[in-house]
Amino acid sequence: CDLGESFGVYTLGRDEQIFPLITSANIACGFHAGDPQVMRRSVAMAVKYGVAIGAHPGTPDLTGFGRRYLEHTLEEFENILIYQVGALDAFARAAGTRTHHVKLHGWWYNKAARDRDLSIAIARTVKALNPEWILFGLSGSQIIHAAKEIGVKCAEEAFIDRTYQPDGCLSSRELPGSLITDPELAAQQCLKIVLEGKVRTTNNAEIPIRADTLCIHGDNPTATSILTLVRQRLHEQGINVAAIGSI
Amino acid sequence: CDLGESFGVYTLGRDEQIFPLITSANIACGFHAGDPQVMRRSVAMAVKYGVAIGAHPGTPDLTGFGRRYLEHTLEEFENILIYQVGALDAFARAAGTRTHHVKLHGWWYNKAARDRDLSIAIARTVKALNPEWILFGLSGSQIIHAAKEIGVKCAEEAFIDRTYQPDGCLSSRELPGSLITDPELAAQQCLKIVLEGKVRTTNNAEIPIRADTLCIHGDNPTATSILTLVRQRLHEQGINVAAIGSI
Amino acid sequence: CDLGESFGVYTLGRDEQIFPLITSANIACGFHAGDPQVMRRSVAMAVKYGVAIGAHPGTPDLTGFGRRYLEHTLEEFENILIYQVGALDAFARAAGTRTHHVKLHGWWYNKAARDRDLSIAIARTVKALNPEWILFGLSGSQIIHAAKEIGVKCAEEAFIDRTYQPDGCLSSRELPGSLITDPELAAQQCLKIVLEGKVRTTNNAEIPIRADTLCIHGDNPTATSILTLVRQRLHEQGINVAAIGSI
Amino acid sequence: CDLGESFGVYTLGRDEQIFPLITSANIACGFHAGDPQVMRRSVAMAVKYGVAIGAHPGTPDLTGFGRRYLEHTLEEFENILIYQVGALDAFARAAGTRTHHVKLHGWWYNKAARDRDLSIAIARTVKALNPEWILFGLSGSQIIHAAKEIGVKCAEEAFIDRTYQPDGCLSSRELPGSLITDPELAAQQCLKIVLEGKVRTTNNAEIPIRADTLCIHGDNPTATSILTLVRQRLHEQGINVAAIGSI
Repeated sequence: CDLGESFGVYTLGRDEQIFPLITSANIACGFHAGDPQVMRRSVAMAVKYGVAIGAHPGTPDLTGFGRRYLEHTLEEFENILIYQVGALDAFARAAGTRTHHVKLHGWWYNKAARDRDLSIAIARTVKALNPEWILFGLSGSQIIHAAKEIGVKCAEEAFIDRTYQPDGCLSSRELPGSLITDPELAAQQCLKIVLEGKVRTTNNAEIPIRADTLCIHGDNPTATSILTLVRQRLHEQGINVAAIGSI
Repeated sequence: CDLGESFGVYTLGRDEQIFPLITSANIACGFHAGDPQVMRRSVAMAVKYGVAIGAHPGTPDLTGFGRRYLEHTLEEFENILIYQVGALDAFARAAGTRTHHVKLHGWWYNKAARDRDLSIAIARTVKALNPEWILFGLSGSQIIHAAKEIGVKCAEEAFIDRTYQPDGCLSSRELPGSLITDPELAAQQCLKIVLEGKVRTTNNAEIPIRADTLCIHGDNPTATSILTLVRQRLHEQGINVAAIGSI
Repeated sequence: CDLGESFGVYTLGRDEQIFPLITSANIACGFHAGDPQVMRRSVAMAVKYGVAIGAHPGTPDLTGFGRRYLEHTLEEFENILIYQVGALDAFARAAGTRTHHVKLHGWWYNKAARDRDLSIAIARTVKALNPEWILFGLSGSQIIHAAKEIGVKCAEEAFIDRTYQPDGCLSSRELPGSLITDPELAAQQCLKIVLEGKVRTTNNAEIPIRADTLCIHGDNPTATSILTLVRQRLHEQGINVAAIGSI
Repeated sequence: CDLGESFGVYTLGRDEQIFPLITSANIACGFHAGDPQVMRRSVAMAVKYGVAIGAHPGTPDLTGFGRRYLEHTLEEFENILIYQVGALDAFARAAGTRTHHVKLHGWWYNKAARDRDLSIAIARTVKALNPEWILFGLSGSQIIHAAKEIGVKCAEEAFIDRTYQPDGCLSSRELPGSLITDPELAAQQCLKIVLEGKVRTTNNAEIPIRADTLCIHGDNPTATSILTLVRQRLHEQGINVAAIGSI
């Protein structure tokens, strides 16, 4: 789950209710959201609930929450990655633990999914920083291909609260209904992904999807309801929920 | 030397001329100066010239260059330290090297010199992040006492281009003449510190001073002239210049 | 009421519920809170509900919401005032209306209340920008004295949702209970101020207070309940609520 | 000339040498460059040398100096225009003068030159703020068409220190030689524009160009030499230099 997105006096998401329900947290690193105080609190909550800590760097655009196109050269992308991941990792180390994975945020995440050169640069940088870190990316996308090519551990990510386009990409947030808020629909999408390896697309077809990790958004207003229902359904199916790499 | 203080299109200091002349660099971390691109270039230059890399975190006040009073709680100070030092350390690791020391910037540096509680919090945080790091602080000040109490390696710092007050503190930058720009005067202050363990104060007295490391400011307009003269004079005295801990 | 304090994706306060209940809005100008989009929306709501528009500039400290000490010279204070008030006024003009008043925010508001030199500088600057604007300030404080001395229209402000110290200053936000959230208590304080010209202090004494305008905080969680009750009680007493200068 | 682009301790351009040589200044407004202190000093210099004051707003990207693509909706563009122009205009009013014109900066300037919808939105906003203001834009571009359609005064701008593409657009800054630093070449381009209404393009052709105002960049390292030579040559031709609208 994407968490730690509050800033200063501003609260976003119900992190305290969500942390006990998840196994991996992607924590904002101060560019698109989050600040040093929020990062420390988020890492402390992850430690408390045994949640794997992920760095969730975004573009330097607090006003736009990292969701707007903001041109960068490849080297600039590498540098804002190094900066933010290093900052988050220091909070993990100061708390006596370690960073477990890295996941890009927002516009940058979607751009990397389609941009091979950017994905290669990201994978190389993650490997140079720590070869143990797992790179999370959109299932089947360029970032996954790049991680495999460069030799970085990776996890293919599927979303239980976002609808999918026929080409396997996420529906744009500007489209109505792109965010799934009905817990029942989200639970059905989750079970289909986990049990059948398929997801239903907006044109009502089914496409194959590989999922090493499942994502839900911390700022989804029904996140806790979705998570509670999803965990119950998975439990009924005898499926264990754990952070990737922990088993 | 304090370096890496450029930002975006703005250039401050002649880093490329100074790096070949020094042994330890304190690199700005993006809050009071510096940005991810500048940090990467600064680390690359340090690697090229064999200069020890130090994190030089400041308060989040780019407009005021970290020189203005900006209230923080102890925990906020810890957090902006963790954030920035982690970011700089990641650039060092990505370049295949490691951070060697930590030195606070500007107003924060001067505040810690006089504030025992803050100094204890800083020393504890540095130790938690990496027990090998050396904490630089004003010679004889609270930060040095705190480092010794907490069990963190430390280096007492003396300045060759700043005048000293009778109490051993640096003259405020608002006072005329607080920055020494005459290379001859700076060289004399340097030799007195190194050979006699003393520094002349603004009331023309001499006070004892311990110096494990010598500092000059990268934005001093005559920094390269001072450094060239100082190295020549030290060489004439048969004194070797090296980063602390490297011998 | 202090409003327009949202930023980007972050929402603070229930502005849409509060605007219909008030007569003067102090709108954040982008330094401590607010952004150009929020400012435009806030001005549009003020126009819609016939609320007088005030500029509410703060110190450049979004992380600390303008509530932390941040050193400025007098000229720097003048400049961040000019910048922000000008920006807000442009939104008012673009919407076909005009700025009605100016009120400092947070730490700056409290500092000016006690600092004669700062208050004089603020009053002079407001007068130079527009001699018709009304300067709001803490009742009986230096800012009011300065406004009178310089010849700027001013309004003495009393708070219906903050407790008062024996010296007439507001209780620090760090003290428990400094913010009044019980609508009944707030309504009683309001009526005492309006009908008797007095306010009860934290040591249970009563001190005289002059109030040209009454303030409530938009981020007070019970702001709408307080406002509804206060307006009902004032109406029962036959008291009309209006923006200062409008009658 | 584009000026006022310093920020905090960072100096960009030799404004004090350039102001005496020009007739119109486009002053940065704090988003891509400039800060409230720099804006006040720039306005004061404009007043001292009788230079017409223009607002020069950019995108909120200090790291990239407003030269990087940063997605905005039309309404967001209007809002960051209103905010910045209002701020600069307040400095002009506080100094007892008035804003004379508005010119977009960097990436935004070039985007508007080609984007009719954006140009219409900009022209409408400038007119709503002050129908007396003159909108500067690239000669022959969409912003000029939009200004005429909406009924805003406008000035077609030609550059004496930038090379032109065959289509009349400016050469990208990423191309070598796009900035003309040789005073002799700049003076020749200037005379050709003024006397013949033509400019030589990078493919060595000549295209017609209309120029109501001539621009040079304050951060051009040879700006003062160019300006001195250009003024001498224009003087030799009996041509007077003045701010548009002043004659």
